[in-house]
Amino acid sequence: MTHHHAFTRIGVIGAGAWGTALANVAARAGHSVDLWARDAHHVAAIARDRVNAKKLPGIALDAKVSPASDHAGIAAADLILLVVPTQSLRGVAQRFAPILKPGAPVVVCAKGIEQGTDLFVSDIIAQTMPGRQPAVLSGPSFAHDVARGLPTAVTIAASDAALAEQIGAALATPSFRLYHTDDLRGVEIGGAAKNVLAIACGIAAGRGLGASAGAALVARGFAELSRFGRAFGARGETLMGLSGLGDLVLTCGSIQSRNFALGVALGEGMPLARASGGKLAEGAFTASAILDLARKRHVEMPISQAVDAVLAGRLDIGGAIDTLLARPLRGEG
Amino acid sequence: MTHHHAFTRIGVIGAGAWGTALANVAARAGHSVDLWARDAHHVAAIARDRVNAKKLPGIALDAKVSPASDHAGIAAADLILLVVPTQSLRGVAQRFAPILKPGAPVVVCAKGIEQGTDLFVSDIIAQTMPGRQPAVLSGPSFAHDVARGLPTAVTIAASDAALAEQIGAALATPSFRLYHTDDLRGVEIGGAAKNVLAIACGIAAGRGLGASAGAALVARGFAELSRFGRAFGARGETLMGLSGLGDLVLTCGSIQSRNFALGVALGEGMPLARASGGKLAEGAFTASAILDLARKRHVEMPISQAVDAVLAGRLDIGGAIDTLLARPLRGEG
Repeated sequence: MTHHHAFTRIGVIGAGAWGTALANVAARAGHSVDLWARDAHHVAAIARDRVNAKKLPGIALDAKVSPASDHAGIAAADLILLVVPTQSLRGVAQRFAPILKPGAPVVVCAKGIEQGTDLFVSDIIAQTMPGRQPAVLSGPSFAHDVARGLPTAVTIAASDAALAEQIGAALATPSFRLYHTDDLRGVEIGGAAKNVLAIACGIAAGRGLGASAGAALVARGFAELSRFGRAFGARGETLMGLSGLGDLVLTCGSIQSRNFALGVALGEGMPLARASGGKLAEGAFTASAILDLARKRHVEMPISQAVDAVLAGRLDIGGAIDTLLARPLRGEG
Repeated sequence: MTHHHAFTRIGVIGAGAWGTALANVAARAGHSVDLWARDAHHVAAIARDRVNAKKLPGIALDAKVSPASDHAGIAAADLILLVVPTQSLRGVAQRFAPILKPGAPVVVCAKGIEQGTDLFVSDIIAQTMPGRQPAVLSGPSFAHDVARGLPTAVTIAASDAALAEQIGAALATPSFRLYHTDDLRGVEIGGAAKNVLAIACGIAAGRGLGASAGAALVARGFAELSRFGRAFGARGETLMGLSGLGDLVLTCGSIQSRNFALGVALGEGMPLARASGGKLAEGAFTASAILDLARKRHVEMPISQAVDAVLAGRLDIGGAIDTLLARPLRGEG
């Protein structure tokens, strides 16, 4: 049974570009929003300028968003958005677990698989915030586009369909639409797998292989994502939806994606350390984790494997291109 | 039973950009190629300049390609590529049916559905060249990219899998790969449906809706294409492959596609007559035909319907955008 949640106060944990954009969305949807970041200087600058100049320049913070580096606002929130990188999710969730309002649902707005544990994001919440219902928000969306009010549609997932629907209704604005599903696993799988594939598409683009090869790679990548998803219980319609195919198409086609951009730099011949600019894109962490999982269920993922081998220094770009393109002539499927 | 075909002489009917590029591919694959076009002046210019300056400028014709406006070369060919627009396919097929070499397979390299009859391209060949085995070549490929030797992968389909494989092997070059399948219907459906969806993606792009909305539209478009395909017997792996999803992704993301470009012009507010530049993109013809077929099998195609309504003057662009974007918040799938 689902309670009917009345969300009036929303806490956003993480004031990166996406956290800040989502805080604005929640405010435009009519809520009071507390936006938390660890760095007190960063928070002070946002509060003073009413703009997150460091992460989301040029976008005015909605009047109903209150930035803070203390926990008070988050502790009072009826609904929590956790908008931190997947590899930091465990630490942040542990920090906030004891202080959140009882029963306040937690929406993870991060994509990927945790290195070391090979856990999906909802599993990290299950471990660190036992008894709390996790939801996942995912889909084709760039923070800047959302912040500028360009029309965007994403998926909101929770095992409890009614909860997903309530969260979706609470966050919707005319330009930000949320489609709800109870296929939580399908949504988090799509978000994780597409980041690795985006690096492959970037490598092909950086190497100048052209649009036809890029499109072929997206199709083969989607087949790979789908095989993986089905092996882990995702539903086909979820994989084919916004959070799967939609996000894959967006991420594989735009330099705005950090994963795609990392691939482009690698494809152009930049060494990994410089291509990543000291901060690896999410897909670079997920690559090895997704292959661990794929091996366990005997899922073939040649594209992700080539990406992982490049990132681990076991394969050069020329070799990766051969793997991505040079398959024998054979039947499809 | 399949004969083992020995293709040494290949006839390409149609000297547009795609026909010329495929003639070069076949020549590079080691064959003697006859390239036919109706217009003797056009042919004479190609033969003199060794370049199809009108349709594929900047690309030298391979030495093994012989342009002609008479039928002799085509009549002697062991394998025929029919590279004319879908709406001209019937007339051209009728013209050549009596003169082709007995047993020479015909590969249709056109995408779409015939207006008036609602027939797929292989059905047009079955009617006009009874007893001849039709194959279909389709997939994500721009003529200029193929001609420049950029890596491209397409699908070659025939009901007889061995025939598809033999044609694929005959046309393959290091940069042009063909994956074979016996799901002929699945391949021609993907090629037809994606052109209509590309117009929708173009409209969204022309209206400045941003990359997130475009990616959401591709995902919803693929769901629409898949519903339609399944209703007409296409296999899921074909729809998800190069000729379905791959071609959809390419066509929906590049102004090189005439269908996408038509949509962009419409989205920017250009009236239809001017947007089409006097020559309609293929998807504009297929839109009404595909909806005819969809109605018969009760397949919902809201995106294609909006495109058709715009092309028929029953809906303005603002109304189309509303249809493309403004769906109620609801569950996916």
